[in-house]
Amino acid sequence: MSELDKNKSNNIKPLKIAVAGVGTVGTSVIKLILSKQALLAKRAGRPLMVTDISVKNIKKPRDFDQSTMVLWGDAAEMARSADYDILVELIGGSQGVALDITKIALGRGRGVVTANKAMLAHHGADLAVLAQQHGAALEFEAAVAAAIPIVKLIKTGLTANSITQICGILNGTCNYILSEMRNKQLDFEQVLADAQAKGYAEADPGFDIDGVDAAHKLSLLSSLAFGVKPDFNAVSTQGVRLITDKDIAFAGELGCCIKLLGIAKINEQGEISQQVAPFMVSLDDPIAAVDGVLNAVEVKGDFSSSILCEGPGAGGDATASAVVADIIDIAANRAGDSFGIPASDLGNLIPLSHDAIEASWYIRLTVTDQPGVVADIADILRNHNISMSSLIQHGKGAQTLVSLVILTHDAVAKAIDSAMTQINALPCVSEKAFLMQMFK
Amino acid sequence: MSELDKNKSNNIKPLKIAVAGVGTVGTSVIKLILSKQALLAKRAGRPLMVTDISVKNIKKPRDFDQSTMVLWGDAAEMARSADYDILVELIGGSQGVALDITKIALGRGRGVVTANKAMLAHHGADLAVLAQQHGAALEFEAAVAAAIPIVKLIKTGLTANSITQICGILNGTCNYILSEMRNKQLDFEQVLADAQAKGYAEADPGFDIDGVDAAHKLSLLSSLAFGVKPDFNAVSTQGVRLITDKDIAFAGELGCCIKLLGIAKINEQGEISQQVAPFMVSLDDPIAAVDGVLNAVEVKGDFSSSILCEGPGAGGDATASAVVADIIDIAANRAGDSFGIPASDLGNLIPLSHDAIEASWYIRLTVTDQPGVVADIADILRNHNISMSSLIQHGKGAQTLVSLVILTHDAVAKAIDSAMTQINALPCVSEKAFLMQMFK
Repeated sequence: MSELDKNKSNNIKPLKIAVAGVGTVGTSVIKLILSKQALLAKRAGRPLMVTDISVKNIKKPRDFDQSTMVLWGDAAEMARSADYDILVELIGGSQGVALDITKIALGRGRGVVTANKAMLAHHGADLAVLAQQHGAALEFEAAVAAAIPIVKLIKTGLTANSITQICGILNGTCNYILSEMRNKQLDFEQVLADAQAKGYAEADPGFDIDGVDAAHKLSLLSSLAFGVKPDFNAVSTQGVRLITDKDIAFAGELGCCIKLLGIAKINEQGEISQQVAPFMVSLDDPIAAVDGVLNAVEVKGDFSSSILCEGPGAGGDATASAVVADIIDIAANRAGDSFGIPASDLGNLIPLSHDAIEASWYIRLTVTDQPGVVADIADILRNHNISMSSLIQHGKGAQTLVSLVILTHDAVAKAIDSAMTQINALPCVSEKAFLMQMFK
Repeated sequence: MSELDKNKSNNIKPLKIAVAGVGTVGTSVIKLILSKQALLAKRAGRPLMVTDISVKNIKKPRDFDQSTMVLWGDAAEMARSADYDILVELIGGSQGVALDITKIALGRGRGVVTANKAMLAHHGADLAVLAQQHGAALEFEAAVAAAIPIVKLIKTGLTANSITQICGILNGTCNYILSEMRNKQLDFEQVLADAQAKGYAEADPGFDIDGVDAAHKLSLLSSLAFGVKPDFNAVSTQGVRLITDKDIAFAGELGCCIKLLGIAKINEQGEISQQVAPFMVSLDDPIAAVDGVLNAVEVKGDFSSSILCEGPGAGGDATASAVVADIIDIAANRAGDSFGIPASDLGNLIPLSHDAIEASWYIRLTVTDQPGVVADIADILRNHNISMSSLIQHGKGAQTLVSLVILTHDAVAKAIDSAMTQINALPCVSEKAFLMQMFK
């Protein structure tokens, strides 16, 4: 019997699925599975069956046929007692019930499929070890960029490559806000209120707009790309709150737009930088064209060169597309190691020191328009070996406040930080400078 | 022992690889494998070893260490006699040696990895059945769009979806030619000569510029997406030779550019249209931004919505990235059915009749500038129930030849073809009209 046949001999029985959490995504997952029995069975090599669901309110009516499912009010009880092959964790949160039931299922040797980026960013390495110990699969395609199959793309499609850089638009809320600020010349607060009204931003938007959500996702992508444990604490995280309509206007003048990017890079010494921050992106770059609530991820491999993948990064159906793809991977016995290599081989991430980050910088200053201002600033930059590539001033008028933007050639953060301390202290500089890196 | 452990128990021995054809791609494949032993072993779960190669000239010096490999002058002899787990077929051609050795290897129950789109477009269904019969894997990520892992993206990443449409820039040569014609205002012949000088186009460029190469790839994508046998003969194929600088200029005026696209769609009756042709693409569409030798593929799923993936579609290293990803899939026991479902379940493609293709049309006419011309044409269109959405004339002068472009609203090909027969026969129309569909 060939190896393929041996794999297939296990595949005759239906795969029993327990879904923990039946909100928007859970409902889409169940509807997807119920609506495509024949197609999914062909693709998975065996039928998929939702046998158990855990819900907050057992009596709430649902718009799918739950008559063949056991309903559980207690997700942990379901995880411990139900007879399932795969637990689909859609409760969310970095710990608590979500973490408990994931551990219970893996401990029983059952597969887990989750969309929970927060839990994996904090506990992914330990959970992957637990999965390995119990010979269980732990899959999380839906945790990053929803319908874009970027986890599988890195784990299988680009697996022959040494990946040197991953860059993504990982948060649709921020991308929507920045797109609207640019396209409609609105300021941040206006667009945020509009995004909240449309349901693109939460009532408490901090998780999104302060970059935390993107940082969770970036830490998972780094782990997959570089073979290290996810290290959320090593992500330098900055959100979009400080971006003003001035920055949007300057970006336009420079042939750029502003994008909140998550970027992870590895250098030849194996040091990894992970940054979530607004970047100036040239309009010539394909990622600049990714507008609105879309997500996109660009992966650079040594043999593949750059591969860019874009699509919807949120939404019930888009997330369900990824969740069910993971279920099918497990059903077809092709789920591999959670992070692409055995969990026991995942190394600790060696962070690149912030000082060593090298980039071209966008520096926006608010200064009093008076003779000698530029000379003072240029002096400080020269003393730090930082060379300017351009300078733009908006507004004019003796002794009034004007905006001054300086672009530098490549310089390390250590030099920039030191120079900025001196520049911010100049009497003519009226408020702390705003800095962004230029994406390249 | 869990299922995962059972899979892994086969994985201790090195995987023995025979490479048939050591040109640009073969050399990249071998160098990739030799240069990343440790990384690939972790990702594949077992070491990869190139044990055999077949080459045209045994004595030719090569820039990799071949001392541990058996060299074969006869690829068929290698396929029959060598002791390998996977045969990598890089000889090319739709039949002959490539087809022979693929059959030999599959018949021996050995895996085959190939970049050969022509062979699979013509014989893919039969080869997939042969693979299934012998429990062997047949993988072909490299056959479509090189480093873009579009085959795996459809087979695994989007496997939960019913796919409704696939659209791709599948030929880098054509995309380069069209990009250059647009960006540098050059005519077709000039750009083709330049592309040949740069190595982007073959000395005999017909395969690329007449759309045959893109049609091979499209037939494979249709098969993966819709669960049917590849049917190259059902692809309606038109190349880029007839596009003039006039069309490029009109496209610009219309806020569009011209792209050679491969588009496959399935309708609710299960009828499939497969077209390779130049299309007018709105500059607002993300695929319009895919310039030069890049490839891109957009897949529309019912749950995922549109996923667009772009990257290098040719080149030794980019193709090797895909070939070795397939090798690792097989090494890790996760290669599934060649076309995503069991080969025995692949149905016959039911082609949509050409007459039923519905689109908005771009019609470029060369007419004598005289009163009544537009009225005559408009009359014929009205008689066919085709409504115009715009009309542009270039050039002016009584009784001289001018270019006239008409855009229509949605109309079926049957009506358009009949109307064009009458329009082409008008005395004022001096040469056969040139038609393109508008992409949407």
